Amino acid sequence: MEELRNAGRRRMLASTGGVMALAGLGGIARADTGGADPGAATGPAVKPLPDYASWKNPDTLIVHSSNTIETKRTAFGNSVITPSDRLFVRNNVAPPKDGSQVKDPDSWTLEVSGVAKPRSFTVAELKAMGHTAVPMVLQCSGNGRAWFPHKPSGTQWTVGAAGCVIFTGVPVKAVLEAAGGMADGMVYMTSTGGEDIPAGLDPNTIKVERSVPISAIEDAILAWELNGEPLSLAHGGPLRIIVPGYTGVNSIKYIKHLAFTKEQSPAKIQQSSYRWTPVGAKPSPDDESIWEMPVKSWINTPSDPDQTVKAGKVLISGVAMGGMTAAKSVEVSVNGGKDWQKAEFVGPDLGKYAWREFIFSADLAPGTHELACRATNEAGDTQPEERRENNRGYLNNSWRDHMVVIKVA
Amino acid sequence: MEELRNAGRRRMLASTGGVMALAGLGGIARADTGGADPGAATGPAVKPLPDYASWKNPDTLIVHSSNTIETKRTAFGNSVITPSDRLFVRNNVAPPKDGSQVKDPDSWTLEVSGVAKPRSFTVAELKAMGHTAVPMVLQCSGNGRAWFPHKPSGTQWTVGAAGCVIFTGVPVKAVLEAAGGMADGMVYMTSTGGEDIPAGLDPNTIKVERSVPISAIEDAILAWELNGEPLSLAHGGPLRIIVPGYTGVNSIKYIKHLAFTKEQSPAKIQQSSYRWTPVGAKPSPDDESIWEMPVKSWINTPSDPDQTVKAGKVLISGVAMGGMTAAKSVEVSVNGGKDWQKAEFVGPDLGKYAWREFIFSADLAPGTHELACRATNEAGDTQPEERRENNRGYLNNSWRDHMVVIKVA
Repeated sequence: MEELRNAGRRRMLASTGGVMALAGLGGIARADTGGADPGAATGPAVKPLPDYASWKNPDTLIVHSSNTIETKRTAFGNSVITPSDRLFVRNNVAPPKDGSQVKDPDSWTLEVSGVAKPRSFTVAELKAMGHTAVPMVLQCSGNGRAWFPHKPSGTQWTVGAAGCVIFTGVPVKAVLEAAGGMADGMVYMTSTGGEDIPAGLDPNTIKVERSVPISAIEDAILAWELNGEPLSLAHGGPLRIIVPGYTGVNSIKYIKHLAFTKEQSPAKIQQSSYRWTPVGAKPSPDDESIWEMPVKSWINTPSDPDQTVKAGKVLISGVAMGGMTAAKSVEVSVNGGKDWQKAEFVGPDLGKYAWREFIFSADLAPGTHELACRATNEAGDTQPEERRENNRGYLNNSWRDHMVVIKVA
Repeated sequence: MEELRNAGRRRMLASTGGVMALAGLGGIARADTGGADPGAATGPAVKPLPDYASWKNPDTLIVHSSNTIETKRTAFGNSVITPSDRLFVRNNVAPPKDGSQVKDPDSWTLEVSGVAKPRSFTVAELKAMGHTAVPMVLQCSGNGRAWFPHKPSGTQWTVGAAGCVIFTGVPVKAVLEAAGGMADGMVYMTSTGGEDIPAGLDPNTIKVERSVPISAIEDAILAWELNGEPLSLAHGGPLRIIVPGYTGVNSIKYIKHLAFTKEQSPAKIQQSSYRWTPVGAKPSPDDESIWEMPVKSWINTPSDPDQTVKAGKVLISGVAMGGMTAAKSVEVSVNGGKDWQKAEFVGPDLGKYAWREFIFSADLAPGTHELACRATNEAGDTQPEERRENNRGYLNNSWRDHMVVIKVA
């Protein structure tokens, strides 16, 4: 019943006059992985949207599993902001089954420790402290994993485990101030999620708890709103810590505890997952952690391999993000990276953590063309040709991997 | 059947496995005008969302009529951008009944005249020319009409015939260039909508055709996307001209003809409606036209008259827009305009045509409080205390009218 507070579900119930039974409705929703009729015998196998995400637009999404849902490359639009109902979902553990937290978001409680005056805050109290809105790229650490040749375990995301959205909430710095400031000697900000932990298991093997360097407090917020609507269970409502510039796993959903700590979390998700472990090696806490995102870009249009593009002027468009600094420029190649030309940024600049939309008009003759793009950020980093290899397939920003091959007739 | 291409309707069909008949579904959707159970005998009378807008979130909207739907003051959120499913709708004439245009948007055709080389463009051709995205306030000329004391005819909008959205499309200047440039001596840009005109009537009494000064070409676009999704029929899809900074009526939906002209349109909607006609006077083409929006702001939180606010620190938030220049500052008063203090802008600056979110923390004692705000724009205009009176109740930007009275206990 957790979706009762959810706008999309409410909308559907309202639209059908409440005559449909609630249970299992989401289970009938279908997501098409291609352009084919999902009911057609020859179409690709499609999985249903899970109940907690049944309000999303199935035509724009690829459902890998109940916890991993990807935006289609052709569905990003050209308005910079990704609509919530097209935004990817990735949960490390299933969302809390009860879901009562999103029915009464204001009473959700956050514990804060590692401060001068440890205390708790309800969401209502956080809301009274003020807010800001942060346009930013939300991206799964494993986005682009599908192109690693050693086939790492995990979801085979291409580009769609990412979106540019606006989160709204109170700055972590304001919360720190209200709690008397940070205790001495703290090095990490550690957030704990409110997922259900099955009884009898070592919590450290399950719990979603991540530590990030203290420097992340500069722009981090505790958010209760996404793109102008109350934060849904699918995206971590009623309260999620948002660490702009860092990969999604560091922005803990259903946050129930925010701690300033001397050590990193002992949880498995911190100690051995999400690290730059060499291919084939055993993960170690000594491997560098997956935190900040690198510069990256990709082409969204044209990108449909089943579509034939008409020869002549072809408009190429895509998105470019800088990671921890703004995207500064993008180049496009129509011959697989042999020659590059500067693309044009269009639309609003929503700040350093957002992506920019770019366009490039190419004159394409009939034949097959390899379209590539590579971004450079304000720090001077340029997107590399090759991915940085690692065991689990994190942070792929290779321009070669993200290239699209199109047919022109 | 026009909603078949609509994401929300598609989503609902998918979610219910297509078992509900299409016809009339929208007619069952209910919009609650208050917090009361729409089914309760004592609740306010509510009207259903019209079919073409049945994908919208009924809990966040007030349905005045099938062509006039308002966003609730409490439903704007704090993320700057207004979600499409919460955005107001105002049609001067019912949307085209056929609706086939949004099923195949790329084949919709626009005629362009008053140029060196008159010609037509399909939407597909426009898309190939490039695009930009414009964050902007879309606001009905009559927003705030409810506060005119002479009760002008027309929808009694308070604040919700407005939203801040992102439209994406091709700049009009690029289209002009492709049509050989403007013909000599043109003074107006005149746009004609594709609404159905009943047979036997003088088209000039019905057709939605508006002229704006040629200067508006600077930032105008021909848009096919709203907030990252294909432009819906409700908002003028497949193609709408967008004139940033001007009131909504000037951004013609379903545009089928773009003309550069020496005279203003002969249509009634240009000649006698949407003008600064004195109260009680007969409208005349000599009255000044309603084009550019003035500086304006209002408080959204707290604004629910049925809600009692807890004494102590109260966070006041709202939106401020500058009209043709950016909002520069906002002041807040908690005593009905006797004293003013500067509020803080928060969140991203999306450019001069967008609104800004502002917050102000007030210390409120038990009792009744009159909360007001007034904005100043970059041109130096400050929102006035009193509305500019006019017969049809256009362009109300009086800070006194927009004041909210709250109970604190």
